[in-house]
This record gives sequence, C-alpha cells and structure tokens, in this order.
Amino acid sequence: MKPVIVIHGGAGSISTEREPGCRAGVKQAALKGYSILKQGGSALDAVEEAVVVMEDNPHFNAGCGSVLNEKGEVEMDAIVMDGKDLASGAVSAVRCIANPIKLARLVMEKTDHLLLTDRGASLFAKAQGVPEVLEESLITERSRKRWEHNLKTGSDPVESQFGHGTVGAVAIDSAGNVACATSTGGLTNKMVGRVGDTPCIGSGGYADNLVGACSTTGHGETIMKVTLARLVLYHMEQGMSPEDAADTALNCMKTRVDGLGGVIVVNNSGDWTATFTTNQMSWAAVKDDVLQCGVDHGENETVPVSDALIPS
Amino acid sequence: MKPVIVIHGGAGSISTEREPGCRAGVKQAALKGYSILKQGGSALDAVEEAVVVMEDNPHFNAGCGSVLNEKGEVEMDAIVMDGKDLASGAVSAVRCIANPIKLARLVMEKTDHLLLTDRGASLFAKAQGVPEVLEESLITERSRKRWEHNLKTGSDPVESQFGHGTVGAVAIDSAGNVACATSTGGLTNKMVGRVGDTPCIGSGGYADNLVGACSTTGHGETIMKVTLARLVLYHMEQGMSPEDAADTALNCMKTRVDGLGGVIVVNNSGDWTATFTTNQMSWAAVKDDVLQCGVDHGENETVPVSDALIPS
Repeated sequence: MKPVIVIHGGAGSISTEREPGCRAGVKQAALKGYSILKQGGSALDAVEEAVVVMEDNPHFNAGCGSVLNEKGEVEMDAIVMDGKDLASGAVSAVRCIANPIKLARLVMEKTDHLLLTDRGASLFAKAQGVPEVLEESLITERSRKRWEHNLKTGSDPVESQFGHGTVGAVAIDSAGNVACATSTGGLTNKMVGRVGDTPCIGSGGYADNLVGACSTTGHGETIMKVTLARLVLYHMEQGMSPEDAADTALNCMKTRVDGLGGVIVVNNSGDWTATFTTNQMSWAAVKDDVLQCGVDHGENETVPVSDALIPS
Repeated sequence: MKPVIVIHGGAGSISTEREPGCRAGVKQAALKGYSILKQGGSALDAVEEAVVVMEDNPHFNAGCGSVLNEKGEVEMDAIVMDGKDLASGAVSAVRCIANPIKLARLVMEKTDHLLLTDRGASLFAKAQGVPEVLEESLITERSRKRWEHNLKTGSDPVESQFGHGTVGAVAIDSAGNVACATSTGGLTNKMVGRVGDTPCIGSGGYADNLVGACSTTGHGETIMKVTLARLVLYHMEQGMSPEDAADTALNCMKTRVDGLGGVIVVNNSGDWTATFTTNQMSWAAVKDDVLQCGVDHGENETVPVSDALIPS
C-alpha cells in the first residue's frame, strides 16, 4: 500500500492575515507525517506527530494558540484512533499541557479506558510524567484579543470562532492500517467544561481498517448531532468514495441541523478527500510523493515533496 | 401513534439477591414513563422521568447506588437526546448531584452546548440552582463493599462491574417523537475522570425521529469503539427491525472488539426490542397498556398495566 496522509487546520473563514501561516502549517504537518510513513512508520504515529506539529504552531486552535473559554482559560480536547483494532484514546477539558494529542495516545496505551476528562486527565498526565506548562504559554495575543472582543455585548462567539482552526490528520500506512487524530481548543468563549465533538468517538474522528479514517472540523455541537465522522464511514461502507461520502454526510449535517464544517477522509484503498461546506478550510495531503494543499474551494496547489521540504 | 416505553437497568450478571429489586425497579420506571406518555406527555419527558426513578433507586448504578472510582468517589455520566431535532444534552464526571439526567436535560435546554464535564458541569449545576448533595448520600453499602473488594490484589474490576447496572430508557410518544436517556456511575474502581460510553452521543444513546431511539449498556470502552447506539440506528435505516438491528450491532461488537452488552430500541413505528449478549439484563416495556419485563434470556413476564401498578 502506498502511504497517504491528509491534514486539516480547521474549517471556517480564514482571514487574509492568517492564511499564509495556516497554509505553511498544514504543509509542514503533512510533510512531517509523510516522512514517518515513508520510513515505514505507522499511520498512528504519523497522525499523532502531524498533529503535534500543529499543536505547537500558534496559528491553529489546538495546543499553543487555543481559543479561550468564558473565563479566559485554555481547555483542550483531543482524540486518536487506530483503525487496526478500533483502539482509541481521548482527553477532554484538559489544561496546562502542551500536547493533548500525546496525552490521548497515552490514555489509549497506558489505561483500560478511552476517555479521561478534566481533573482525572490532569492526574493521569502528572502520573505519566507529562510536564505541566504555564497556561500563558498556550495563549497567543490573537486568542486573548478575540476573547476580549467576544465579551463585549452584541458579539457572536459562535460566528467569530469560525476563523479558528481545530486540527486533524488521517493516514494510511504501507501495511494498510488507517488512523485519525484530532485536537482542539474548542469554541471561543465556551462555557467552562464544554466538551465538543473532538474527543467524542465517531464525532471528532473515527478509524476502521475495514473502511477508512475521518477527522472532522466545524461547529462541534452540530457535528455531534450527526456523529459526523462515523456517518462518513457508514457511507463508505455502503460503497461510496471518500468524496461522495464526505459530500453526503456534510450535506446531511447542513440539512438536518443547519451545520457547516469540513472533513478529511482516507479509505482503505488510499483514496482521499478534503471536503468542506464552510467558506474555507486549510488542508494538505501527500500521496505518491506529491504534496497538495488548499484553502479555498476548488483550489489545489500541487508540488513534488522534494520541492516542498520546509527546513524544520 | 400508540406510545411505547422501554427501560433497561443494566446488562451483566445479576445476583439472585439483587434480582427482585432490579425487576421491581425497571417495572416502576416503565410505568412512570408510560403514565407520562398516556397523559399526552413527550417522549423526552417520559425517558427523563423514568431515568430519574432509577437514579433514585439504590439498586442501580446511577445516581444513588453509583459505583465508586479508584479513589472511592462517585463520578457520574448521563445523556438525553430528542429525536425531533437531534438536540441532546449530556454531562460527564459530575459529582454530588442526585439526578445527572436532569442536569443533562438542562445542558440541552439552557446552553448552546451538548456536553459539560466535571468542574464546568458543577459550576453549571450551581448556576441553575441544582442542589448539591453529600457524596455519602449517593453511596450504598454495596457500592462501598465492592470498591473495597476491588482494591484487593487479584480482583478484576471490569469483570465484577458487570453485576451493576447503568440505566436507560427509550420512548415514542403519541406525536411520533422518539427520545432516549441513559445514566450511569460508570465502571467500578475506574480511574478518576474516566468517561465511558454513556455521555458520548452515538455510543450511550441516539435518537432520530426518522429512524428510532436506542440506549445502551455494557462495557463502556467496547461500546464506544463501535458507537453502538448509532450502529443500531444505521442498521434500522437499512431496513432492519429493531430486533435484527440490535442483534447485528451486538454481534459486531462481540466479533470486532470482544465486547458484551445490551440495548433497548424503539423504531418510529413503535416496534421495540430489549436485546443483550450478557448473561442477563433487567428490562421492562409498556405498549398497548401491557407491561412486559425480563431479566434472563427468553424470559418475558407479561401483565396488564392495570394489574401492575405499584403504589409510589
């Protein structure tokens, strides 16, 4: 099997000012994941490492750069899933760690559970020796300004959050295993303890070697109502291509619950798509040593991986 | 549409000592929910009130009677979902309240979110005027003994938890609306902050007027891996009866992830099932003014509602 990785940096409206950073960020993450796959690494490692790259990048709403809740705090959600055995790990409302996706992977590998939340997630992180970081180190000037803006009367946090970007990755490795990973700071000015779609298996992501893998982005509450990632996979089980499955599932979300969003999908043959109903979604993919990338509908920038390598 | 309500009090192995209490408890909850439906109440009110009855009953692993986590604390999860518009509310790892299902309903009706966890769920409960109760008031002698037993070397908490019972309800009302509700104390001796299938939409429950409603019980981690409730509904969308959909989904869970459990299901025609792959599951249902109830495979005790009324 030829390895494939697809990345998203969030669906929404991306400001002109943010666009170059998002574009470079998704490319860098895709190249990182692809290099792992090319060296014979697993899909699981590739999606995790690609998401770490984006959590560390302040342009995205995950890890450093996360949006703030109503109290001005960072509470993050993440999930990882291995299509080989449907194993999964997730964390919700976790604070003061740099890489929630790594903690999600630890939940998967070091516990009998799938999801740890808030206080328990923190206790587990500490027990695993995950360093606690200062909350300030996760907060960017942009996040703080947006939070302050949203505290003003008449602002619409749900609307304004659409410029931010949950991050995600799906991949298939040379052994034919698929995996997904998704990480987010959630919704701007959300209530304390609000958990969105990201750590909910089947909503923020799903991976099954018999079908494929999907990671989602958009308005979490509407994604959850249709269990978007699982819905995409059901359509593929019924014989649809990743593209048709993504279109059908996103269309269902629009029709049934008036929700917009985006998905990245790979099936177990290595066909893939990056599809969105929002104005924009930053995405990148690598297959056959060719990097593709886009932000606007219909856009597809294509370069050989050898020309795209960004010094890290 | 003739109203129907189906209740479960948890799948597993039910001790002879616990059986009469569980049997009476599911009947009482079914009669409570049915009386609401017969008075023209909504499926949503019926499932919520039926679950409240079981949360208040110390025989079940929800509300009072919840199992204890590794630290001897009660952390509860609950979800409610309205099939009319796919609206849902849930709480995870919530402490010191008597009725998590009521808090889940408040999340659905009073916030823009679907799921609140731990600290945030407590803040929200306080803001809504939900009384805080002493943790001791939720802990039974049986829960404490089981917790102490499981702390001993060589015990298997996953195995032993199967005697306990997550609770749930599904219903269809006279207007044809379906709803589901599920509530649990989770897994005995679970890690602090462990969230199971119950509050994860599509795993612990799912309701869609176009199809039907489902509430699940069993080993949470394996239920999540197959998003069991959503899976049952997908099979019904493909034309299966509730019974065939339940069998197929539970069989998939057994085959793919070696998991046992049970489901209660109603479709949008009012056909229903209570199906389980564990040794036992306490369940009750009312349709056409007839109460049915069972605990063992193949068992179906049937009495007219008029003869079954239990003085409250």
